[in-house]
Amino acid sequence: MGKNEREENGFDPENHNQEEEEEEEEKKQLKEEEHSVERIFENQEVPSWRKQLTLRAFVVSFVLSILFSIIVMKLNLTTGIIPSLNVSAGLLGFFFVKTWTKLLHKSGLLRQPFTRQENTVIQTCVVASSGIAFSGGFGSYLFAMSERIAKQSTDTLDFKKLSLGWIIGFLFIVSFLGLFSVVPLRKVMIIDFKLTYPSGTATAHLINSFHTPQGAKLAKKQVRELGRFFTFSFLWGFFQWFYTAGDNCGFASFPSLGLKAFDNRFYFDFSATYVGVGMICPYIINISVLLGGIISWGLMWPLIEDRKGDWYSADLGSGSFSGIQGYRVFIAIAMILGDGLYNFLKVLSRTLLGLFHQLRYKDMSSELPVADHSSDVSSQSQLSYDDKRRTQLFLKDQIPIMFAIGGYVAIAAISMATLPHIFHQLKWYYILVIYIFAPALAFCNAYGCGLTDWSLASTYGKLAIFIIGAWAGAAHGGVLAGLAACGVMMNIVSTASDLMQDFKTGYLTLASPRSMFVSQIIGTAMGCVISPCVFWLFYKAFNDLGQPGSQYPAPYAVVYRNMVLLGVKGFSSLPKNCLLLCYVFFGAAILINLIKDLVGKKWGRFIPLPMAMAIPFYIGSYFAIDMCVGSLILFVWEKINKAKADALAPAVASGLICGDGIWTLPASILALAGVKPPICMKFLSRGNNAKVDAFLGS
Amino acid sequence: MGKNEREENGFDPENHNQEEEEEEEEKKQLKEEEHSVERIFENQEVPSWRKQLTLRAFVVSFVLSILFSIIVMKLNLTTGIIPSLNVSAGLLGFFFVKTWTKLLHKSGLLRQPFTRQENTVIQTCVVASSGIAFSGGFGSYLFAMSERIAKQSTDTLDFKKLSLGWIIGFLFIVSFLGLFSVVPLRKVMIIDFKLTYPSGTATAHLINSFHTPQGAKLAKKQVRELGRFFTFSFLWGFFQWFYTAGDNCGFASFPSLGLKAFDNRFYFDFSATYVGVGMICPYIINISVLLGGIISWGLMWPLIEDRKGDWYSADLGSGSFSGIQGYRVFIAIAMILGDGLYNFLKVLSRTLLGLFHQLRYKDMSSELPVADHSSDVSSQSQLSYDDKRRTQLFLKDQIPIMFAIGGYVAIAAISMATLPHIFHQLKWYYILVIYIFAPALAFCNAYGCGLTDWSLASTYGKLAIFIIGAWAGAAHGGVLAGLAACGVMMNIVSTASDLMQDFKTGYLTLASPRSMFVSQIIGTAMGCVISPCVFWLFYKAFNDLGQPGSQYPAPYAVVYRNMVLLGVKGFSSLPKNCLLLCYVFFGAAILINLIKDLVGKKWGRFIPLPMAMAIPFYIGSYFAIDMCVGSLILFVWEKINKAKADALAPAVASGLICGDGIWTLPASILALAGVKPPICMKFLSRGNNAKVDAFLGS
Repeated sequence: MGKNEREENGFDPENHNQEEEEEEEEKKQLKEEEHSVERIFENQEVPSWRKQLTLRAFVVSFVLSILFSIIVMKLNLTTGIIPSLNVSAGLLGFFFVKTWTKLLHKSGLLRQPFTRQENTVIQTCVVASSGIAFSGGFGSYLFAMSERIAKQSTDTLDFKKLSLGWIIGFLFIVSFLGLFSVVPLRKVMIIDFKLTYPSGTATAHLINSFHTPQGAKLAKKQVRELGRFFTFSFLWGFFQWFYTAGDNCGFASFPSLGLKAFDNRFYFDFSATYVGVGMICPYIINISVLLGGIISWGLMWPLIEDRKGDWYSADLGSGSFSGIQGYRVFIAIAMILGDGLYNFLKVLSRTLLGLFHQLRYKDMSSELPVADHSSDVSSQSQLSYDDKRRTQLFLKDQIPIMFAIGGYVAIAAISMATLPHIFHQLKWYYILVIYIFAPALAFCNAYGCGLTDWSLASTYGKLAIFIIGAWAGAAHGGVLAGLAACGVMMNIVSTASDLMQDFKTGYLTLASPRSMFVSQIIGTAMGCVISPCVFWLFYKAFNDLGQPGSQYPAPYAVVYRNMVLLGVKGFSSLPKNCLLLCYVFFGAAILINLIKDLVGKKWGRFIPLPMAMAIPFYIGSYFAIDMCVGSLILFVWEKINKAKADALAPAVASGLICGDGIWTLPASILALAGVKPPICMKFLSRGNNAKVDAFLGS
Repeated sequence: MGKNEREENGFDPENHNQEEEEEEEEKKQLKEEEHSVERIFENQEVPSWRKQLTLRAFVVSFVLSILFSIIVMKLNLTTGIIPSLNVSAGLLGFFFVKTWTKLLHKSGLLRQPFTRQENTVIQTCVVASSGIAFSGGFGSYLFAMSERIAKQSTDTLDFKKLSLGWIIGFLFIVSFLGLFSVVPLRKVMIIDFKLTYPSGTATAHLINSFHTPQGAKLAKKQVRELGRFFTFSFLWGFFQWFYTAGDNCGFASFPSLGLKAFDNRFYFDFSATYVGVGMICPYIINISVLLGGIISWGLMWPLIEDRKGDWYSADLGSGSFSGIQGYRVFIAIAMILGDGLYNFLKVLSRTLLGLFHQLRYKDMSSELPVADHSSDVSSQSQLSYDDKRRTQLFLKDQIPIMFAIGGYVAIAAISMATLPHIFHQLKWYYILVIYIFAPALAFCNAYGCGLTDWSLASTYGKLAIFIIGAWAGAAHGGVLAGLAACGVMMNIVSTASDLMQDFKTGYLTLASPRSMFVSQIIGTAMGCVISPCVFWLFYKAFNDLGQPGSQYPAPYAVVYRNMVLLGVKGFSSLPKNCLLLCYVFFGAAILINLIKDLVGKKWGRFIPLPMAMAIPFYIGSYFAIDMCVGSLILFVWEKINKAKADALAPAVASGLICGDGIWTLPASILALAGVKPPICMKFLSRGNNAKVDAFLGS
């Protein structure tokens, strides 16, 4: 957005009148100035790193952290698809502090103006904090340890009773390690390698644009739109609540495409969240999800169910993993693993290739073969004014390397001592092995993310599941050991890439690396407390959390549990032909990715993503339909008014997601307080309706 | 709309620079020219009256007649509130012929361009035809004769089996009389009295504006908007249909304000029609309806029901007129009669006063005390260019007075001979008496309508009910005689005022009175066939037509039947205290009207209309909530963009009404074909839901 803004103002370089070379030169300089962000901010003093860390920033961060933790948790537990919430966080952070400073300014109490550095601090803190809601594994590995999920699998080998205490403890132990592991590499990655970090760059552009007068005007418009749709979405959630007295009641069970389609989980479930998610996600993701739903629930599952009694025992309940549910989960796992493996190898090879080039042609950094979506900064081999100023400030505040190494070793030692107390199955030497390899993997992930914007945290986590799970074995609690190891690994690599992403944002907004680091640490600490509490609220409020077909099926919890079972027990428990289908889909996932990369960008963007296709395999297509509705709205909006849609669609989508997300807070409080909705909106077939009318009449 | 358009173009007369008198004079002339409609059309030839009556006009009229008959019938049978559909008829007529002529023009076959006179012919024909759907009494006196309605009353004195044959015959006999009764008076009323006819004038402005280039552009926009909302509303009706497998199923039973409110008929029933009606009706009507609903269903009925067993027998079914239903219907009748009586006397006195002034100060017509909302035409005592040209053309084509008198006598003779064969109870001398007084009443109504835009046709009909009903008496079939007399009377006075309204439109668009008269006759003939057929479709398709609480409760049918019962039997059958309450509300209706007139326009517009308040007394407030939603939408729209709302709201509202109205056509065909919707969207309380779940589970 910020980028668009500036491009509109810059003039077209093609239309020069080439009369004199001097004039040309002058124009060039003018153009550079026009394109230079830092010249706009030249007169603004950059506050010291301590002054960037204001109390108000952390208060706002705390409020937003709760908001985003709730939203991420809801997404975790419904589908596991989490769109980038950076824009919403940026907008809302800006809005809160701006309102605050305006109020203070009016009352004459304002001591410090609101700077973009402070804005970056908020952004960093919120992203770090709500990141824990994802990497904490509440929708995946952590919840997979619980009895509720264990009961769904045929095994009841191992489970661990969830409790708020050990979850918070566990997160505190594992979440800070990633920060210390990559902090010394920031200069190499940001300044020497000039890695792109598309999300971080985009966030920085957004923040920079907010603080120009024109950008502030647009931001105001966006905030108003966000507020409007936030209200609508919240009220809509509230309204829906009244009609949900019982299972299969309410708008979420609306058979909008007919009862037959509803039975196969094709329906629009009126979720404002996923309509918003659909507006944020690229079209191809939404199409992929829908396609996955059609292939699985529309085609494969009905065909497999026809073979009931032959392929699998007809006596099994619909939830048994030896029955139809097994096909759903394991084929989804196969696709996810195939996609993960391909991308892991791809990113790894690009990482190595990139590193090789970096080290060989250190001063020719602009010719990096992979940095094709580079920002306007890295495209010039000569250091521009922007680069000079940014580098100068980035290098001003140092973080001693011994502090980083010391921190890492200290935390590693504490974890090794304490983690086995939380998970008896996780021996101290497993942890040691993880911690020896972790920095390398963390670096890989941070570097790969800088190139492709793709954090492979969950792939590294899956790696840990299989390795540690198999190493421990079924007899020695391999299930819990594998899941816990997944958590350790995921937290390290995910926070590492987040931190580097934020350093990039800080670099582009002149925020000090020190303040970024401190903000990240405070945000992580907040997240370690907020996320478990939010999860606990959901866990206590919704008794059917994790049940298939419920409001919160937590699909990845089941997937992760079955992955670790595969790891420790092998393929023995799979129903007939399931393994064959898994191989086919594993191969298909790799093949599709390969084709996507081979045909080039032009055609590749029409080829679906196997990872996105896999999710509806287990939970059905209803959210895919929501997301496609979001796509459709965006598509029509873009047809009508492209400029307006581009400027406001992310705000509208954020409003829809945030409003519905926040409604879950009062909804779960009502559920905890035992307040039940008064009405059930029920959908009956004509035959059943006649029966029910006769029953109620008598 | 047309008026607004022109006012924007005219310049402000206050800002003159008064240098010279001559310049002043010149400007005045210029201004007059600017404001003159006919100068714009000066170069357009006015076709002869025969050429105004084209085949294409009648084909389009026929199609639109069916459309509007369906809509009016639907409105008749749901609430009886029928907004002015002139704008939609004008817009759609323009759209159809314009498309037609464009296509012909492209193919080179166009022989005659589309003129505003032709447009007026279509308008007249459609209004005449769809007027029969109202004055035919399918929602009131005619349906009140049927067995279905008779069974609801405690009496089963008299009913007449409905059949398509006699209904069409009856309409043909009684519908043309009104036309002949006032045709000789057209010059007196239009040219000498310069009566306003607000609806007719507005329609003429609309048609004139369509045929200016700028107006055509606006019309195109309006048509597009109408089409868009037509489609939406039609699809919404279609979508709703799927969920209505059974009683109390679907969106029309959505307890959007809770189950308790639903039981007292307070809910939003998602009817696009009434949202549209709410957008067309003035705010005060919508507020009145809602207020009536709150007073009756929110306050009075619950209080009266508390006295069950005391005021009325507790054994009675909820539909008995000796029980709570009696209070509902008779108090509503009392209010309607009170309001009707007041307005009858008011319009009559104004008519007489107006006539008196006309005859006394014939040449000072501009000082008519009552013509306060006069058009720009009648405000000048000197004949303007427009007036001259219009008068000239209006007087060019004459209709011989002997033709009118001859026609009236001939039709009267035929009716007297045939009507007693249709209704044995309606003796020939009743008809003779009606026909002797009818021309006077027709003139009164046409004149009153010219002043106030209020056609009192149904009030004259009620007069006939009581007089003929009481005259015949219960023993001699007074019920049917009264209802049939009501029909005769209503048709005469209603067509008379419609015709004069159309003459005014024709006067302002230079359409010949002859073509108006022929168009009116053809339109009436169409209506006499189309309306009964449309009614028959509804009657056959919906078996619960006329049942209280059903989709089509036809409230006025019950009201009319009970009125005639009151007329023939007196007050004996009313439950305890009902008569007292009736007197109170009868008096209140008169009082409210009196206050409304006394306090003046400024405050009077905030005082509700008793007639509108009475309707929810019987059927409940759900449509009032729809209409208030329509009001709210319009209100917000006007706040956001007044100009756009003013220009497009009528088109949007028409689209909503027409789309939903047309959906009833396929809906009733589906019902006739025995195709039933597959799903029931049911609303159960939490307790009932648990029971039903247990029942379905077992």
